[in-house]
Amino acid sequence: MRVIIDGIEVDVEPNSTLYQLSKKSRKRDVLIAKINGKLYDLSRAVGDIAKEGDVIEFLTFDDKEGKEVFWHSTSHLLAAAVKKLYPDALPTIGPPIDEGFYYDFYNLKIGDSDLPKLEEEVKKLVKDDVKFERIELTKEQAREMFKDNKFKLEIIEESNEALSAYRDGPYVDLCRGPHIPSSGYIKAVKLLKLSGSYWRGDSKRETLTRIYGISFPKESLLKEYLQILEERKRRDHKVIGKELELFMFTEISPGSPFILPDGFVVYNELLQYARELDKKHGYMEVMTPFIGRTELWKKTGHLEKYRENMYEVVPFSDENDKYVLKPMNCPFHIAIFNAKTRSYRDLPFKLSEFGIVHRYELEGTLDGLLRTRVLQQNDAHVFVSEEQIEDIVSEIIEMMNETFRLFDMKPIFVLATRPEKRIGSDELWDKAENALRNVLEKIGVNFTVKEGDGAFYGPKIDVYVLDFTGKPEYAYAVSTVQLDFNLAGLLGAKYMGKDDREHVPIIIHRAILGSIGRFMGIVLEHTAGNLPLWLTPIQVVILPVSKKYEDFANSIAGKMRERNIRVTIDGSESTLEYRIRNARLKRIPYIIVVGEKEMNEGTLTVRVRGQKDLIKTEIEKFVEKIEYKIHSRSMDLSLN
Amino acid sequence: MRVIIDGIEVDVEPNSTLYQLSKKSRKRDVLIAKINGKLYDLSRAVGDIAKEGDVIEFLTFDDKEGKEVFWHSTSHLLAAAVKKLYPDALPTIGPPIDEGFYYDFYNLKIGDSDLPKLEEEVKKLVKDDVKFERIELTKEQAREMFKDNKFKLEIIEESNEALSAYRDGPYVDLCRGPHIPSSGYIKAVKLLKLSGSYWRGDSKRETLTRIYGISFPKESLLKEYLQILEERKRRDHKVIGKELELFMFTEISPGSPFILPDGFVVYNELLQYARELDKKHGYMEVMTPFIGRTELWKKTGHLEKYRENMYEVVPFSDENDKYVLKPMNCPFHIAIFNAKTRSYRDLPFKLSEFGIVHRYELEGTLDGLLRTRVLQQNDAHVFVSEEQIEDIVSEIIEMMNETFRLFDMKPIFVLATRPEKRIGSDELWDKAENALRNVLEKIGVNFTVKEGDGAFYGPKIDVYVLDFTGKPEYAYAVSTVQLDFNLAGLLGAKYMGKDDREHVPIIIHRAILGSIGRFMGIVLEHTAGNLPLWLTPIQVVILPVSKKYEDFANSIAGKMRERNIRVTIDGSESTLEYRIRNARLKRIPYIIVVGEKEMNEGTLTVRVRGQKDLIKTEIEKFVEKIEYKIHSRSMDLSLN
Repeated sequence: MRVIIDGIEVDVEPNSTLYQLSKKSRKRDVLIAKINGKLYDLSRAVGDIAKEGDVIEFLTFDDKEGKEVFWHSTSHLLAAAVKKLYPDALPTIGPPIDEGFYYDFYNLKIGDSDLPKLEEEVKKLVKDDVKFERIELTKEQAREMFKDNKFKLEIIEESNEALSAYRDGPYVDLCRGPHIPSSGYIKAVKLLKLSGSYWRGDSKRETLTRIYGISFPKESLLKEYLQILEERKRRDHKVIGKELELFMFTEISPGSPFILPDGFVVYNELLQYARELDKKHGYMEVMTPFIGRTELWKKTGHLEKYRENMYEVVPFSDENDKYVLKPMNCPFHIAIFNAKTRSYRDLPFKLSEFGIVHRYELEGTLDGLLRTRVLQQNDAHVFVSEEQIEDIVSEIIEMMNETFRLFDMKPIFVLATRPEKRIGSDELWDKAENALRNVLEKIGVNFTVKEGDGAFYGPKIDVYVLDFTGKPEYAYAVSTVQLDFNLAGLLGAKYMGKDDREHVPIIIHRAILGSIGRFMGIVLEHTAGNLPLWLTPIQVVILPVSKKYEDFANSIAGKMRERNIRVTIDGSESTLEYRIRNARLKRIPYIIVVGEKEMNEGTLTVRVRGQKDLIKTEIEKFVEKIEYKIHSRSMDLSLN
Repeated sequence: MRVIIDGIEVDVEPNSTLYQLSKKSRKRDVLIAKINGKLYDLSRAVGDIAKEGDVIEFLTFDDKEGKEVFWHSTSHLLAAAVKKLYPDALPTIGPPIDEGFYYDFYNLKIGDSDLPKLEEEVKKLVKDDVKFERIELTKEQAREMFKDNKFKLEIIEESNEALSAYRDGPYVDLCRGPHIPSSGYIKAVKLLKLSGSYWRGDSKRETLTRIYGISFPKESLLKEYLQILEERKRRDHKVIGKELELFMFTEISPGSPFILPDGFVVYNELLQYARELDKKHGYMEVMTPFIGRTELWKKTGHLEKYRENMYEVVPFSDENDKYVLKPMNCPFHIAIFNAKTRSYRDLPFKLSEFGIVHRYELEGTLDGLLRTRVLQQNDAHVFVSEEQIEDIVSEIIEMMNETFRLFDMKPIFVLATRPEKRIGSDELWDKAENALRNVLEKIGVNFTVKEGDGAFYGPKIDVYVLDFTGKPEYAYAVSTVQLDFNLAGLLGAKYMGKDDREHVPIIIHRAILGSIGRFMGIVLEHTAGNLPLWLTPIQVVILPVSKKYEDFANSIAGKMRERNIRVTIDGSESTLEYRIRNARLKRIPYIIVVGEKEMNEGTLTVRVRGQKDLIKTEIEKFVEKIEYKIHSRSMDLSLN
């Protein structure tokens, strides 16, 4: 029979395995095959699954699905290891995740110190290079095989498909597959951590023990990954936020941050920056309600599409008066547009709002400031005519770039184009997609295209920012600009055109910083807590050598406060060394020790954050210099 | 028998009427009598209601209860007039309100133009000086008397008390009373407006027609009142807000303002002012969640006490995960206090937040920005020890006074002291009340005391601002400072004292501007829309005489924008006169017309808001002057 591999027609014996066939591919270290959208074990015979002329794709660890199968196979090894050391434990499920895999066990009482033993067992299986053998099962056979495991039985009873199990060495697990050919493909494995979980994620069901792990086809990849984990921990905004007392969370309102006094300084500086940027570009700031009648969200379609993420709001005193806690500001901005008769002269009509929106997320997915249930968006809507799309999107991308330059961040632009199901004419989509593409090309940024990934109401550009690894898969989602051909019409927005006829405006949704809180989290990780001067809660600390120099310290601090420099004096009883160490832990950009010499000479000795040498400078010069640095939002702390 | 009048024992015949007895009082124009907390008609015999030694108080129109009876009696006359002209209408109820009275009628279809006729009928009854005669009724008698009025019957059936009716001329109404002796006491009456209403305020019951009116014992009082109404209309912030496009409301979210672009400028300037004031006094700004678990509000007691005004928030995807939309920020600030071990050195601990709180109010009571369902409070909580109360309250009152001076507002301070039901020792209350009293006395402000009007958890000072009438009863509630002996303990807040023992802090709740939106409404009414320069959305408008001078206009505008002056150019095609008129309607403080002369001389001719003469000035001087005025938040626009 003939099949297609790497775009080339290939003759193949129907009896030969996919493994054998994979040798004809350019790809090396193939793990599984993909035929007609489905994944198969390499041990399968070509003729059993492929038809004449089918495209056969071979996947490796570099492919997302290849990684998933690789990690999922490793989770089977983990289950085998657990069963060997803890025979009474019951394996439940063990899926791959974004980074590695986990496996959930019932009746497994272990601690972190037990992980190395388990890891050793997994490594033994790896060394033995055990095969993953597929076993096809009838429901009856499956019931018999897993009769001692009530969790597997539950899965079996719910299944309507043909069932299968996989054997690796002594261990057999109920599994749809596919798997990597054998455990020898795994060259490095690491069990990472333990946590608790519930069967089916349901807190009313059985409590389980979850073991997380990761594996790689090369030792060096694991080493690299562990380094990333370590660096990530160092940069974790949750850890830094706690150290610097920037924000906190409590059980009173999961997913809703408390922005603490020092954190609020950072938060508000970010908000003021975004406000300035909007103002410079002619956005008109507004403030709209926090709740809207449920009817409204039915009309807009939100209630149907995003119901799972929305909150209902009902006054205790009238249960029929129903509202929704706003998940977005758009309908309210359209109400403002609709409040007056608008003409083409009013376009582009730019409304901005630091709107507070709530989106319900599962508690397990919350992640400090990076994933919350409440966001203060750096939101705006621009009402435009078709001809204005390109100019406005261009301006918005420039605003994003200005921001990324300011924070020394590297953006990735992703253009998402028309999906299958959509509204609006092909002509409009052509025009809109071309406009977005033109903008990206003219500005000269690198971008990728995700065909078909646009919303049903229009194409969009999503913007990510690389983290310290520089790997796109780890990048933070930050900004977005989305065209919308739908909502204005739905809510009756219109304007009189030059042609004296009514037109429906196109709405451009955009967010530069995304949400203020999330962006704060990203900046904290991006800088590892060493915030730029203009964002630091305390910009200068003055440490008098002894009580005698407190007046001098106060007089310098006074001069700084006049220029709105955030300065404190640490005249506590502790030793100078302790106070310097403390100030360093707080990442204060400038630490100034004052004593006899400084007082006599009217000079300052400054420890600049991240620099080894002490800098000697005159008071006035120092104040002027850092005042300028703050105003210009400079990233550079140096005083030379 | 002997009774007490004006503090003096008086001998009286038990058969004599209260009217006869009232002649022995110092008071003139007495309307009713108050004995043991109950009100009685003057026609009643003393011996029937008073016991030996009872205090008999006589009330006039100057007393709140006297006014209420006066107005309620007038509503009976209105009902009589309606029955005369519209015999098919059914009177329902006609209570007194803050200003005058209303009466609700069923089956009465009239328009504004019918009010004068009705008013004439009322005046005829007034002229006839008809007596109000009390008729005691059994339930059976009442049923028979009002058998044609289903609304009265409903009231009769619900009543458990002895029933009564009052006759005034040809009209008899079911009524508990009491009333003024006769209609001749009324010297001036005015029917003010019509509106729709529902029987029992329930939109599922019958639709009624409500007629509002007011009456006075002197013609001059009515005249004065009508002048107040007219001036109030001129100053109505809802009207001004619409004219100046500052804010709007929609049915999407009743009671939640949309702050429009120009309005947001005002709003944000007010917020920034309040933020500056707080910062100057060492408050640490924070931002806390918008929702909190229902459990929390049970614990604090809010759910029990303020349930009617609160909103429940529930994610659509988990109806068991219940929250409340926060009605206040206090518990969240206490959570921040509790997040660390605190000692006496941390006190006073001052947290501020422009917290967004929601309070459900009946739709009929909403009033533009003055009464909304959402407030952004100028909120703060200070955690103090007993000894610190006086200093902190003093500082807070000074902050209020600074604010009132800035806006040229006249405050009234009201000290509310311990109520019957309260927590905390008498010693603590003594100390706290004395502290508040001392502060008011030391600062030297006039204040009144409302004995027993404090909250159960502590005494407070409420601060009102006089409106244009200067009458305390019309004053706006603005600021408040409240001591709280309860909440900190309830939520486990504590600090280590100097004595190395744990203490529960006292919490001071305070708001200077009250809520930003409400304060904006008050400022709009206070200034009749002529906002101080620093608050006006557009501070300067430049009108070029013709196209030729647009460049010149632009160059001046540029200079102003550099100094952050909010300037626009109106170079539209309309006549200069029209444009000047337009700018005046927008209450723009400085209107500058530029033409040949100005361009050649480099001068400006300025129309200053509220001044007749044109002012000639040099460009630089003008810019400098108003930049200074803006920075110093000056109320004075003059350029001399």
